[in-house]
Amino acid sequence: MIELRGKPVADRLDEESMKLMAENGIIPVLAILRAGQRPDDLAYERGIIRRFDNAGAKVTVRELPEDVSQEEFDKTFDELNADPGINAILVMRPLPKTLSIEHAKDTIDPGKDVDLMNPAHMSGILEGRKDAYAPCTAAAVIEILDYYGIEISGKKAAVIGRSLVIGLPAGLLLMNRNATVTNCHRKTPDTVKICREADIIVAAAGKAGVLTAEHVRPGQTVIDVGTNVDENGNLTGDALYGEVSEIVDAITPVPGGVGAVTTSILLKYTTENAIRMTK
Amino acid sequence: MIELRGKPVADRLDEESMKLMAENGIIPVLAILRAGQRPDDLAYERGIIRRFDNAGAKVTVRELPEDVSQEEFDKTFDELNADPGINAILVMRPLPKTLSIEHAKDTIDPGKDVDLMNPAHMSGILEGRKDAYAPCTAAAVIEILDYYGIEISGKKAAVIGRSLVIGLPAGLLLMNRNATVTNCHRKTPDTVKICREADIIVAAAGKAGVLTAEHVRPGQTVIDVGTNVDENGNLTGDALYGEVSEIVDAITPVPGGVGAVTTSILLKYTTENAIRMTK
Repeated sequence: MIELRGKPVADRLDEESMKLMAENGIIPVLAILRAGQRPDDLAYERGIIRRFDNAGAKVTVRELPEDVSQEEFDKTFDELNADPGINAILVMRPLPKTLSIEHAKDTIDPGKDVDLMNPAHMSGILEGRKDAYAPCTAAAVIEILDYYGIEISGKKAAVIGRSLVIGLPAGLLLMNRNATVTNCHRKTPDTVKICREADIIVAAAGKAGVLTAEHVRPGQTVIDVGTNVDENGNLTGDALYGEVSEIVDAITPVPGGVGAVTTSILLKYTTENAIRMTK
Repeated sequence: MIELRGKPVADRLDEESMKLMAENGIIPVLAILRAGQRPDDLAYERGIIRRFDNAGAKVTVRELPEDVSQEEFDKTFDELNADPGINAILVMRPLPKTLSIEHAKDTIDPGKDVDLMNPAHMSGILEGRKDAYAPCTAAAVIEILDYYGIEISGKKAAVIGRSLVIGLPAGLLLMNRNATVTNCHRKTPDTVKICREADIIVAAAGKAGVLTAEHVRPGQTVIDVGTNVDENGNLTGDALYGEVSEIVDAITPVPGGVGAVTTSILLKYTTENAIRMTK
């Protein structure tokens, strides 16, 4: 069994981003807009800042109180969106219940929308354009498969989940690479069978224990996108790692798998956009 | 075996459109922009004009010579796009090889883009919004299933084809309705098996004879989206109708199936948009 660790994938992506920065003489700037202090958001933010710091890129955080008014939130967003010194914007979601994402979603500059907050900006994926931004986690799935030389074309893929941020775009990206893809969801009658017949399984249900020994067989690759916190406060994936990893050929650990690559995709997109903005 | 004829589906859709026109006191106007005189385009255009005429809606055709300049083509498009008297625009495609669709695609008013020329306007489907426009043929697939009371939720669907105009959006629409969907394409290793295991098969490869007796079993519903012309000049679907129809429970004929519904979807979208534009 090969453990598909994210770190070497992330390192290679970061090297490419740093090379682009040096070649173009730029320091990419990502703005994070956050309302409140959800622990998840703070953990993600720390990871991003560490990654960007290491690579010599910048993160500017605009923190607003949890009870900020919609007007103030939208105004802050507008400033970041209009600021030519900001190359990309990440709004931490979900927002507090009192806030609507609609204005930000509808008006974000397509170039700055590195998190694909506006699904209209996913049209590049629908068209199968190779340079299209994809939601960072979905893009990370493909990067890991490519890094470890796992063939996608002509293979069958089962994606557990169909969310707009991960399951759906991951399925589309795999299909664009000529996999035959089935997204499983709560109304799927035979998720076990579909998973067993797949060559690649992407577990993106966001629920611990969704992928078990029953779903898998030797010869398969499992990409575990889940980031669930168990009763002891530990991060776990959607797969029961212990039992699944004993059967399949390759699997990403959680933590240390997909999550490690996601922030490097964010850095890559921010860098690419900074280059476009200087031209 | 039930033959899923398109006419009653189209008639019901048209009744709804006519009711909306009467209630809102409007006459919807569709503009067709055509360069050259491809027989396919002319046949489609005649079908549209007939349908709109019958319902009391209007079609205005802007015909340009096949060798029209890009500048002239784009200018004509801009006029239609800016004209408040035009509620929807259909550009006949493929365009002559000398012309690019890019300008029209990038600038078309989202409300007027009833044919979803710009894939960014498909984001409503990605989000699963019920009121989202879908490419007309893909929407027709769902209308037919609904009209004939064929359950979609919890069922397995195989879509042969993954084109941006039919296969891909048809798959997404089926998934939004809680089917478990697999799009088969030229790199799919076992299209026969996937089709046999499905409850609903959508044949959208655009190639005659793609769906044969081998692919099907009793209990299935086949929606044949193909419009191929055989050596005798007759219209045929993607399925070998003779042998497939003897096995499955229900199938759309070609002609007289999906195609008949597509223009009614176009009328429905044009009508809905005309209502929005008067508000």
